Amino acid sequence: MDTHNQRQHPAPVTVIGLGAMGSALAAAFIAAGHPTTVWNRTASRAAPLVAKGAAHPETVAEAVAASPLVIACLTTYEDTVEALGPAAAALKGRDLVTLNSGSPAGARRTAEWARGHGARFLGGAIKDVPPAVGGADTLLYYSGDATVFAAHEPVLRVLGGDTVYLGADPDLAALYEMAVGGTLLPALVGFFQGAAALQARGLEAASMVRFTERWLAMIASVLPVLAREIDSGDYSEPLSSVNVFVAGSAHDAELGKEAGLDVEWHRPFHELLERAVEAGYGTQSIAALTEILKEPRRAA
Amino acid sequence: MDTHNQRQHPAPVTVIGLGAMGSALAAAFIAAGHPTTVWNRTASRAAPLVAKGAAHPETVAEAVAASPLVIACLTTYEDTVEALGPAAAALKGRDLVTLNSGSPAGARRTAEWARGHGARFLGGAIKDVPPAVGGADTLLYYSGDATVFAAHEPVLRVLGGDTVYLGADPDLAALYEMAVGGTLLPALVGFFQGAAALQARGLEAASMVRFTERWLAMIASVLPVLAREIDSGDYSEPLSSVNVFVAGSAHDAELGKEAGLDVEWHRPFHELLERAVEAGYGTQSIAALTEILKEPRRAA
Ligand SMILES: NC(=O)c1ccc[n+]([C@@H]2O[C@H](COP(=O)([O-])OP(=O)(O)OC[C@H]3O[C@@H](n4cnc5c(N)ncnc54)[C@H](OP(=O)(O)O)[C@@H]3O)[C@@H](O)[C@H]2O)c1
Ligand SMILES: NC(=O)c1ccc[n+]([C@@H]2O[C@H](COP(=O)([O-])OP(=O)(O)OC[C@H]3O[C@@H](n4cnc5c(N)ncnc54)[C@H](OP(=O)(O)O)[C@@H]3O)[C@@H](O)[C@H]2O)c1
Repeated sequence: MDTHNQRQHPAPVTVIGLGAMGSALAAAFIAAGHPTTVWNRTASRAAPLVAKGAAHPETVAEAVAASPLVIACLTTYEDTVEALGPAAAALKGRDLVTLNSGSPAGARRTAEWARGHGARFLGGAIKDVPPAVGGADTLLYYSGDATVFAAHEPVLRVLGGDTVYLGADPDLAALYEMAVGGTLLPALVGFFQGAAALQARGLEAASMVRFTERWLAMIASVLPVLAREIDSGDYSEPLSSVNVFVAGSAHDAELGKEAGLDVEWHRPFHELLERAVEAGYGTQSIAALTEILKEPRRAA
Repeated sequence: MDTHNQRQHPAPVTVIGLGAMGSALAAAFIAAGHPTTVWNRTASRAAPLVAKGAAHPETVAEAVAASPLVIACLTTYEDTVEALGPAAAALKGRDLVTLNSGSPAGARRTAEWARGHGARFLGGAIKDVPPAVGGADTLLYYSGDATVFAAHEPVLRVLGGDTVYLGADPDLAALYEMAVGGTLLPALVGFFQGAAALQARGLEAASMVRFTERWLAMIASVLPVLAREIDSGDYSEPLSSVNVFVAGSAHDAELGKEAGLDVEWHRPFHELLERAVEAGYGTQSIAALTEILKEPRRAA
C-alpha cells in the first residue's frame, strides 16, 4: 500500500468493542482521518466517537460489512467470537485483527474460527495503556497472515509508531503478550506493598515514585544479561546470586510485621528460591529460577 | 567540606566487606584517588584491590582506625555488627555508613549499636548493581545523622551521581530500599516465566528483551497516577481496573499447561484480586490492591 495515497485517501476501518482501549483505538483512527465505523454491545459507549464523526450502524454485521479492515478489542477471545457471531456471514473477505489480551490457544481458536468464515486473521497485542495509543513509541505487535499485515501496515501504524510483525503463526503475538506482560501484576503488587509500608510511617507513596522509576530502569538494564544466561543455560557467573535473594527475602516478614502488611504473597517466591538452592543453584545466577519454573510440581 | 580541597586531597576511606558490591565500592574510591583501606573476613578477596593500591591491614580494628569514614557492605545488618564486633573500641569518633540491604528494624539496631560505641551513623542503600557503581545516574540514598552526610557528601558522590539524603531517621534508607526493592524479585520471576514460555516454543529469551524493556518503561510511566490514587485513597477513575486483571489472570493456567510451566506462584495474586473484588473494588483501579495488602489475614 502506498503511504502517500493512504494519506490522501485514508482507508476505512471498523472498530468493534469500545471499552477503554477500543475507544482509544477508534479515536486515533478518526483523528488520523480514517472513515471509522464503530460498534459496541452497550451502544451508549459509541456516543463520544459518533460526536467525533464515527459511523455507528445498529448491528455488528453492518459494522463488519462497512470496512475491509475490522479491528476487535474486547475483553477476551471468547468475547470476541461471541460478539462477532451474528456478523459471521459478513466476515467473508474481511481482514480481522484482534487487539485483546489472551492465551496463545485463544488466539489459535479465534484464527481458525475467522478463517472458517472466510476472513483473513492477524492477532495483535498492544503493550501500553489507552492514553498511549497513537504515540510514536507505543508498541504493538502482530502475528498471523503476512499479507494482512503488509496490506494494512500504514493503517496499523496509526495506533503506535513501534509496530512489529512477529511471524506467521497467529498466536505469536498472544504468546509474546503473555510472556512480556507477566511482569506487570507482580511488579505492581511489589509497588503497592512499598506504598503501604511508607504510608504506615506517615510517608506518601508519591515520594517513592522517582526511585521506583530508576529501579525499573535498572531491572531493564540487566535483562540482556539474564536472557543470555537463560538461552545458554549457563548460570555460573552471576551478577546477583540466588543466595543474595534468599538473604533479602528473610527481611520480608520483619517489614510486614512492622508495617502491619499482608506479606503472604511472598511465600511462593521464597519457595522458588528454596527449590533453586536445593537444586544446587545457590551461588549461581537468580536467572536459574527459570529452570525451576520449568518443573511443574507434583500435586502435594 | 570544600569540594575543591577534596579533589586535591581526597579523604581516606575504609571499606569493610569485599563481596561483589563492597569490591565495586572500594574500586571506585581507589579510582577517584582516595586513600582506601579494605578488610574482608575472607582475606583473599582483598587481593585485586591491594593490587590497585588499597591498604589491607590484618585486623578489622586496624581497618576501622585507618579512616574517619568507614563504609560497611556486608550481607545483612547482623553480619555487619558481628564483623565489626572486634573493632567496637576503634569505632569511637568514626563515621559509620552501611550500604547493605535489610529491614528498617535492622538499621535502627545497627545505628544504636554504633552510637553506643561512640560512632556517628548513616544508613545507606545502593539501588543498582555493582558494575553501575560510580555512574552519573547511579542512585544511592542515605538517612541518619545529617552532619555525617554533610561532612562526607562529596566522598559519597564518588559511588553514584544520584546521591540523596532522605532524613534524620537512621532507618529511612532501609525503608525506601525495601519499599522500592520489592518489585525486583516478582518482576524477574515474571520475566523468567515468559522466557520459559518462549523456550517451550523454540524461541529465545533474548527475543523478548526489547519488548520487556519497553513494558517496564510503560509500568514506570503509570506510577505517578497509581501513587496519586493510593495517597488520595480514591480509586474510582481507573486507568486499569481490578476486573481487567481478573480477566487476564484467567489465561495464566492455560499458558502454564501449554508450556509445561509451574504457575503456582500466581495463586496469591489471584487471591488478592478476588479479595479486592469481594471488597467492592472490581471496577476501581488496580491500585486498590494496596488497601487489601494493608489487611493482614487472620490465620486460616
Ligand atoms: N486498558 C488497558 O490498559 C489495556 C492495555 C493493553 C491491552 N488491553 C486489552 O484490551 C482488551 C480490552 O480492554 P479494555 O481496557 O478496553 O476493557 P474494558 O474497558 O473492560 O472494555 C471491554 C470491552 O469488551 C466488550 N465486551 C466484553 N465482553 C463482551 C461480549 N461477550 N460481547 C460483546 N462485547 C463484549 C465490552 O462491551 P460493553 O461495553 O458492552 O461491556 C467493552 O467494549 C482486553 O483484552 C485488555 O486486556 C487493555
Ligand atoms: N550485588 C548486588 O547486585 C547488590 C545490589 C544492591 C545492594 N546489594 C547489597 O549489598 C550487600 C552486599 O552484597 P554483595 O553482592 O556484595 O554480597 P556478596 O558478594 O555475597 O558478599 C557478602 C559480603 O559480606 C561478607 N560477610 C557476610 N557475612 C559476614 C560475617 N558474618 N562476617 C564477616 N563478613 C561477612 C562476606 O565476607 P566473605 O567474603 O568472608 O564471605 C562478603 O564480603 C547485600 O546487603 C546486598 O543485598 C547488592
